[in-house]
Amino acid sequence: MSRETDDLAQLTKTARNKNPAPEEDLEDLALGEDYALNPEYVPMVADALDRGDTERLRDLLSALRPEDVADLMGFLSAKDREELLPHLDPETLGDVLSELDTDIREDILEHLPSATLAKALEEMDSDDAADVVDDLEKDKRAQVLAAMPEVERAAIETTLSYAEESAGRLMQREVVAAPQFWTVGQTIDHLRRESDELPELFFDVYVVDPSYRPVGAAPVSHLLRSKRDTPLAQIMEQVTEIPVDMDQEEVAYIFNKYNLISAPVVEPGGRLVGQITVDDIVGVIQEETEEDILALAGVSDAGRDAGIVGIVRSRLPWLLINLVTEGVAVTVVGAFQAEIAKLVALAILMPIVSSLGGNAGTQALTVAVRAIASRELTPANALRIIGRELAVGLFNGGAVGLMLGLGTWFWWRDMRLSIVVALAVIANLFVAALAGILAPIVLDRLGRDPAVSSSVVVTFMTDFFGFLALLGIAALILL
Amino acid sequence: MSRETDDLAQLTKTARNKNPAPEEDLEDLALGEDYALNPEYVPMVADALDRGDTERLRDLLSALRPEDVADLMGFLSAKDREELLPHLDPETLGDVLSELDTDIREDILEHLPSATLAKALEEMDSDDAADVVDDLEKDKRAQVLAAMPEVERAAIETTLSYAEESAGRLMQREVVAAPQFWTVGQTIDHLRRESDELPELFFDVYVVDPSYRPVGAAPVSHLLRSKRDTPLAQIMEQVTEIPVDMDQEEVAYIFNKYNLISAPVVEPGGRLVGQITVDDIVGVIQEETEEDILALAGVSDAGRDAGIVGIVRSRLPWLLINLVTEGVAVTVVGAFQAEIAKLVALAILMPIVSSLGGNAGTQALTVAVRAIASRELTPANALRIIGRELAVGLFNGGAVGLMLGLGTWFWWRDMRLSIVVALAVIANLFVAALAGILAPIVLDRLGRDPAVSSSVVVTFMTDFFGFLALLGIAALILL
Repeated sequence: MSRETDDLAQLTKTARNKNPAPEEDLEDLALGEDYALNPEYVPMVADALDRGDTERLRDLLSALRPEDVADLMGFLSAKDREELLPHLDPETLGDVLSELDTDIREDILEHLPSATLAKALEEMDSDDAADVVDDLEKDKRAQVLAAMPEVERAAIETTLSYAEESAGRLMQREVVAAPQFWTVGQTIDHLRRESDELPELFFDVYVVDPSYRPVGAAPVSHLLRSKRDTPLAQIMEQVTEIPVDMDQEEVAYIFNKYNLISAPVVEPGGRLVGQITVDDIVGVIQEETEEDILALAGVSDAGRDAGIVGIVRSRLPWLLINLVTEGVAVTVVGAFQAEIAKLVALAILMPIVSSLGGNAGTQALTVAVRAIASRELTPANALRIIGRELAVGLFNGGAVGLMLGLGTWFWWRDMRLSIVVALAVIANLFVAALAGILAPIVLDRLGRDPAVSSSVVVTFMTDFFGFLALLGIAALILL
Repeated sequence: MSRETDDLAQLTKTARNKNPAPEEDLEDLALGEDYALNPEYVPMVADALDRGDTERLRDLLSALRPEDVADLMGFLSAKDREELLPHLDPETLGDVLSELDTDIREDILEHLPSATLAKALEEMDSDDAADVVDDLEKDKRAQVLAAMPEVERAAIETTLSYAEESAGRLMQREVVAAPQFWTVGQTIDHLRRESDELPELFFDVYVVDPSYRPVGAAPVSHLLRSKRDTPLAQIMEQVTEIPVDMDQEEVAYIFNKYNLISAPVVEPGGRLVGQITVDDIVGVIQEETEEDILALAGVSDAGRDAGIVGIVRSRLPWLLINLVTEGVAVTVVGAFQAEIAKLVALAILMPIVSSLGGNAGTQALTVAVRAIASRELTPANALRIIGRELAVGLFNGGAVGLMLGLGTWFWWRDMRLSIVVALAVIANLFVAALAGILAPIVLDRLGRDPAVSSSVVVTFMTDFFGFLALLGIAALILL
């Protein structure tokens, strides 16, 4: 053992010597301790680009992994980005392209010669390559595909034939399958023989029947530790088949629920056509929750590099909708102009009542949207959850109404005004609970995305009823 | 080949016959096409529990995977849940416990005998078991740990010694490591010999130096397809080491950025102490974005089964804060009572101006919070992004201000009032942009979670300045 240790120390030393010292330093400099790109690294690259210092640039880039280069692209100006591209080899370029934000990628794709792009696509997995091709404009797409070898082109075209955001788009077509009657030893021998044809990484060998339908999966770690004469059928586990046309949100739900690492994708007849791995799913989960967060805030979608026009386009429509609904809501105020002129305190209390309603409604709404997304709110428990929200609305309304009533009395020493405002808060927080829970449920039943327009509905309801409750009750009791 | 196919058909047939027909039907009934638990299945289980029909219950449960049982628990009443527990074997119980929502789990843990719980914990991975033990009350924790074998207890105690939400809590202590000088063949032989000691699933064999520091990782799929005499050093890939005290949010960022499947966790000295796999990360990502969504809506945190008291506790504090900030904001309205009494149109336009500001602020804020979380907004580009937000605020303010000005003119035919309201909207949407982008950036620099209190700040600012802009400009120009 001591001798082996010496050998090993020797090996380690040799390995270290392979990297000359300056490059090591760049690696330390490139990333912060948290593996985020170091902000100081960006001007260093920009500077090397400006000076046309190819050697320095090569050193700077070689300290980065493709994911870091993609990050770097996000911080460079469009001009610098364009100048950087020729310095990436096809494999790195492919990896960088699959990591880039959509908007930056679209910009880069426009400037990339078709031949260069075709070479990079050949190096990519079929799903990632199809993603890129999908972003190309029609003419360029035809040019690029024409410049690719037949096999890779066909793979991309098949992938693109599936609906967007479906399992077919997400899957990679490269899978490892073995017949049920093989042993562990036969399978390993087969893998060694076909080494060049296999996917870069795989986690399961799918066990298939004679019609190429998956009947189980043998995790590679089980293959490794089982004796050579063990039949695959003995170590294989249950598989969760993913239909090729399933929506990616459902696929993510299944992966998350069953903690899957990979799953076979099947055609309608049950034939194995590809596999989805959990690393694809991480992206989908982030994409889908991100969409929900932004939709709840009234932002249609805009990447980091959307530019001012893109951002305005993603937000202005919602502000205009807000203008219209708010315009309708304030007609209530218009109807009670005489009352406000008589008692200006109403104009002061009005925004408080509507704001509390808006907040309570947003709370109920957000919880409901997330519960629907994670399938915790279903027809089986909808009634119970609606009841609970209404109870919470009444309780919170009572508590906050009491506080505002006390504050009102403290300020104006008018008991009747205090009662009016307390009642208005209770009524509006009840409406907020009702709208907050019902709007997403109803939109979901109608097949709409509950995150997208629920906020508009709830804000309108709580403003409209907030004004109506305060001014209406005041008109009845006070004036 | 034809003969093999026949054999296989025979095998498949036999396998099918193992499952008697009625159980098959239950499996079809248990889950919807989307793998969510079928709502109709819940009353079937509840009914069997009521009737004390143990056999029926066993059939019903055997059609479910542990994750589905956890789902089922979420839909059953507390009483039914408690009655169901004795029908689960220790292994299933362990799996169910690690899948349950925290609040339901806490409820169940209270009612579970220490001995039963100890048995279930023995069957679980160290990270999942530690999670459960962490939820136990002090006395029960001591009882349960005392009832466990020494090795499992020590593993749980070590895991719990790491900070909450750190890599140490997330990792499993079970890893597969091999010295650098081994060949593929030696490694496989070792795995077969030690088969019983290995983690249930693993994706990488970590290659370590004599001090047990990881120097690389050999993906199992590479081991499988390489010739036996290949040295590990030749097929190993670069590893991304995770320090044991790193926050789980950072770990998730790294996994997501580099599309990792597993990563070695190391002590401060660099020694390998465990591994984190991507399926743990999927949970972390969901948890962290979920926290952000809820925090943005002013919900502190509440699971599905929080009960009315829990929900009130998670929401009422934010409503009370809202009451206070709104109370401060309306002091502006109070200061302009005379103006409102003279021109009631101001009371009608006031909510529109503040609502538009609130919406625009929420848009900017949400985008900023997400950009910070995904490290797309950093000191390197903060100034550029702030500038862009202000430009968007001015542009959107101009557009919406123009529309509202036109509406005002249409309604009141008062050109000066139209100009006042348009200017107020422009000013308030500029303030909204400023507050929306600066609040999260400043909170983040102060080491606070930008999702948690940004909304309060932004809503206050846009209400306060909305009122001030409209009433102040009106006082100056109109009255």
